[in-house]
Amino acid sequence: MPSSNLLPNGGLVAESFTTWLRLHRCEVDAVVFDVDGVLTRGGRPAPGSRELIAWLRQEQVPFALLTNDGGNSPEQKIELLRKSELDFALEEIVSASHGLIELVRERNLAGQLFYLMGTVGTPCYAQRAGLRVTTDPGAIGECAGIIVGEERYDWERVITVALNFLLRNPQAPIIVPNPDDVFPVGQGGLEIAAGAVSRFIQLLCRTRGIEIAPVYLGKPYAPIFRYSHMRFESRVQRTIPRPRVIMVGDSLTGDVAGGRDFGYRTALVLTGITTPEILARSEIRPELVFRAVGDE
Amino acid sequence: MPSSNLLPNGGLVAESFTTWLRLHRCEVDAVVFDVDGVLTRGGRPAPGSRELIAWLRQEQVPFALLTNDGGNSPEQKIELLRKSELDFALEEIVSASHGLIELVRERNLAGQLFYLMGTVGTPCYAQRAGLRVTTDPGAIGECAGIIVGEERYDWERVITVALNFLLRNPQAPIIVPNPDDVFPVGQGGLEIAAGAVSRFIQLLCRTRGIEIAPVYLGKPYAPIFRYSHMRFESRVQRTIPRPRVIMVGDSLTGDVAGGRDFGYRTALVLTGITTPEILARSEIRPELVFRAVGDE
Repeated sequence: MPSSNLLPNGGLVAESFTTWLRLHRCEVDAVVFDVDGVLTRGGRPAPGSRELIAWLRQEQVPFALLTNDGGNSPEQKIELLRKSELDFALEEIVSASHGLIELVRERNLAGQLFYLMGTVGTPCYAQRAGLRVTTDPGAIGECAGIIVGEERYDWERVITVALNFLLRNPQAPIIVPNPDDVFPVGQGGLEIAAGAVSRFIQLLCRTRGIEIAPVYLGKPYAPIFRYSHMRFESRVQRTIPRPRVIMVGDSLTGDVAGGRDFGYRTALVLTGITTPEILARSEIRPELVFRAVGDE
Repeated sequence: MPSSNLLPNGGLVAESFTTWLRLHRCEVDAVVFDVDGVLTRGGRPAPGSRELIAWLRQEQVPFALLTNDGGNSPEQKIELLRKSELDFALEEIVSASHGLIELVRERNLAGQLFYLMGTVGTPCYAQRAGLRVTTDPGAIGECAGIIVGEERYDWERVITVALNFLLRNPQAPIIVPNPDDVFPVGQGGLEIAAGAVSRFIQLLCRTRGIEIAPVYLGKPYAPIFRYSHMRFESRVQRTIPRPRVIMVGDSLTGDVAGGRDFGYRTALVLTGITTPEILARSEIRPELVFRAVGDE
């Protein structure tokens, strides 16, 4: 177990989030979880995570799973979690797709045509958010902007089309499900994520003297948190002060910084990508640190 | 014509390189040309370029065409120039492929297996330089390094394979024909060049805390200049002092900086990618500036 001096600014290292929550139930109106490395580990439920979810339901504490997954629709995400033996309802998932609903509303983009790189899940969540999409390079001239999806696609052709469009239309929105560089696959391998692809395009534009600003939907950016918070409030039919919500995640830059910037309390679990050494070196400070989400 | 105050540090703006060279013939032992924007413009010979080349041959002034083209072998480059109605001999072309010969010798890489992204021309100039190459991701474990080629290939799959290899082998050489970000195609369109792809991989490695250092063969890097200079000396069977060679190009960062760093005299022509405005803003100062390579 990490020594308690890991958090000089008053943070707490304790065994499990579950134990803490049972003791601090009265301070918490809702809980936001990251999924991988927190509720699941290597495609299996993390010890105690099913019991925790069952208890939250029983206690009627609203909770949400916040995922940056840009290549799966919420329906697909539920199926994937079911394969990991965790059952969730559609209204318990908040993903980049919901961030897009927020963004389309804010920027009044409904009905506009976007050039879609790759896919953003099945059913296509860009269409559900009210956008029209095309993957036809020939239609790029009619497009209002670009969405960087995931999955396999012909990067060379598609990135080249996007680059030439953005050099001509530097103000056009380029929407990206998450800011992630890579995501893990299989035995220590990495796949390249939409965030990295968008920054590659950004870098290429910069060499031509053109600055573009990708809009990220996922953690740590606000759209995904805003949508989730709105859904909590709609469920309990009242305003929920943000300091009465806690974000539980395994990533300092995505989960902890994102929750903190949104005004939530933040809890880090050490079962995912953040080791005690990374935590000790980081300037991002979670309010609470736990060995795991559940009791083992 | 640009005003003469473009070059405050004593540079000269004159009409044509041809006129200058005829007057300063005794100062010059050899001439190195960039091709596109200098000897050719939009796939046609630049005015006076054929006459200049004929005069150099007649006067027995050794010259070379230095090209960063990473997707064509010298044989293919000659064919392309022939289509532009310019005839050159194989020994008058120096390309990234020759930089690779230099590099293989320097680093004692002959016979080693490299993972080739895309192609490096037909015939494959990496094989001619003494390397063995594979494009099979399954053979990556046996590879000593990576070569980033050009042409069309499956970026997503291939870049992912290269990234995972370099994260495990950060000391392995990653060889890149040129440092260019983009190259122009058709009506104002841009294609993404090998230099940009290599920096994308470099950036991805950096997000994982791994620093890699791509080795560039083309201008402004030394290998291509070294090979060319060696060939001049071998042709005249004596040492040629570098200040007696002049590099004539249209790019400040590739041609002028590269020539200068190698110890050559440098001449910029304003018929390619450098406008008088770009020149005025740049900190890279050619020794001589000409309106064009030939008399119009």
